[in-house]
Amino acid sequence: MAFPNHRLAAFFLAVVAAVTSSAVAAWNVKLEIDNDIPLIHTLRPLLSSAAGHQSRRRNYGGVPCDSWRFAVETNTIRGWATIPASCEEYVGNYMLGGHYRRDSRVVVDEAIAYAEKLKAAGNGKEVWVFDVDETTLSNLPYYAEHGFGAEPYDRAAFGAYVEEASAPALRETKRLYDKLKEMGIKPVILTGRREDKREATAKNLAAVGYTGYHKLLLKPQDAKVHSVEFKSGERKKLEDAAYVIVGNIGDQWTDLLGEPEGARTFKLPDPMYYVA
Amino acid sequence: MAFPNHRLAAFFLAVVAAVTSSAVAAWNVKLEIDNDIPLIHTLRPLLSSAAGHQSRRRNYGGVPCDSWRFAVETNTIRGWATIPASCEEYVGNYMLGGHYRRDSRVVVDEAIAYAEKLKAAGNGKEVWVFDVDETTLSNLPYYAEHGFGAEPYDRAAFGAYVEEASAPALRETKRLYDKLKEMGIKPVILTGRREDKREATAKNLAAVGYTGYHKLLLKPQDAKVHSVEFKSGERKKLEDAAYVIVGNIGDQWTDLLGEPEGARTFKLPDPMYYVA
Repeated sequence: MAFPNHRLAAFFLAVVAAVTSSAVAAWNVKLEIDNDIPLIHTLRPLLSSAAGHQSRRRNYGGVPCDSWRFAVETNTIRGWATIPASCEEYVGNYMLGGHYRRDSRVVVDEAIAYAEKLKAAGNGKEVWVFDVDETTLSNLPYYAEHGFGAEPYDRAAFGAYVEEASAPALRETKRLYDKLKEMGIKPVILTGRREDKREATAKNLAAVGYTGYHKLLLKPQDAKVHSVEFKSGERKKLEDAAYVIVGNIGDQWTDLLGEPEGARTFKLPDPMYYVA
Repeated sequence: MAFPNHRLAAFFLAVVAAVTSSAVAAWNVKLEIDNDIPLIHTLRPLLSSAAGHQSRRRNYGGVPCDSWRFAVETNTIRGWATIPASCEEYVGNYMLGGHYRRDSRVVVDEAIAYAEKLKAAGNGKEVWVFDVDETTLSNLPYYAEHGFGAEPYDRAAFGAYVEEASAPALRETKRLYDKLKEMGIKPVILTGRREDKREATAKNLAAVGYTGYHKLLLKPQDAKVHSVEFKSGERKKLEDAAYVIVGNIGDQWTDLLGEPEGARTFKLPDPMYYVA
């Protein structure tokens, strides 16, 4: 299982550091055994006593975090650079506490139920489009160390993480991927990662079991193009080559909007970041 | 305030009936004072003891209702005729317990913040598209009496309710509507209700304060056309007449998908029904 020991060790060290350094601040240690993926993480100590006081309430510092998540997941709140500072604990609990996994499971259950009802043409032209980040691969080990989206995007740090090729699979997506391959529907991986990350991406996908995909499409290195344009353009090329996009799964609306969207879209949760 | 006394009286009678008839069954009475709208309702007695037993858990009878709602609100689960039977209490609590109002408020706060940043052209050509059901008007008084979507759609019963023209305003949407009018952005009401409901719809809208809209567009009586086609077609006509659709708000994805969508879309919550 591609969840390297050195990263796990770093998590444990972070927990120890939090425990020893935050004698007066509130802190939480979360542990989730996600099949064979151990996920351990400390939510950052809340230094403000007001934040600590409010941390058990739904409405942290004026922002009802569950309603903020609703508006984000439905593409109403757009273009945000970071999650509301007061929602860091909420998002952390969402991501690690089982809610994220449960939401993802219902999405994939629906995708599989849909796929099973398809009358497959069996001509090898049916494809399913998969995004990478927070879709095939989970960057939760990275985001857990970066405030679950409370810190601004750090291109260099995230780039270094991608180069490690150490991200675990989103296990629900992997379940869909395997099922579709079994059914003869070809996976196409379509990502906003750029070409300089092709090797690391391919290595990471292979390491966690995403094998036998039809194509891995990355954004040209210097293309000045937003995700919707890039991704819908690539889907259009697939259709022009007589492929039928029976499904399209991603965590961002930019994965799912823009014709041709694919016959059905499946929105995975992601309250941590927004991609334009 | 257009919340007729006879309907309110019916609610009270329903509560009394539930209290007197359900000595052995579980029942709940919910009361919410929503500014000047009293909302009182009894959730239907849960006749199955298993359902009663599970009613305090998130996962009712195998369906995690909050995850089901996530997948519905993000357009992943489509074409459903009724909510999962085991989620009736969950959806009832969501609708009446303040969560629905809070989610709607965040959507409208975002819409107003967006509108305030617009550089209005001031040429009278800027419009904002509003849906009717569960957007300008709330049919919660009807749905509260019909299992919050647990009962199959009843065209005759719902039609009779529409003819009453008694629906209250969704107060968050009303707040947006008033703000936009003040800013010189023209409201256009675009609904899947058919032409035979024009009079009742106009009367209901006026009764709850939706006045001064630019157009009220209903579906032609006998048109065999799905909502996405009808609504995107009407938006196209607006653009062809040189209007600029600066915003578009609705509770169904069929309100918001299909070019031209409008410069920004705002998805209100609706876990009670699905419109194709």
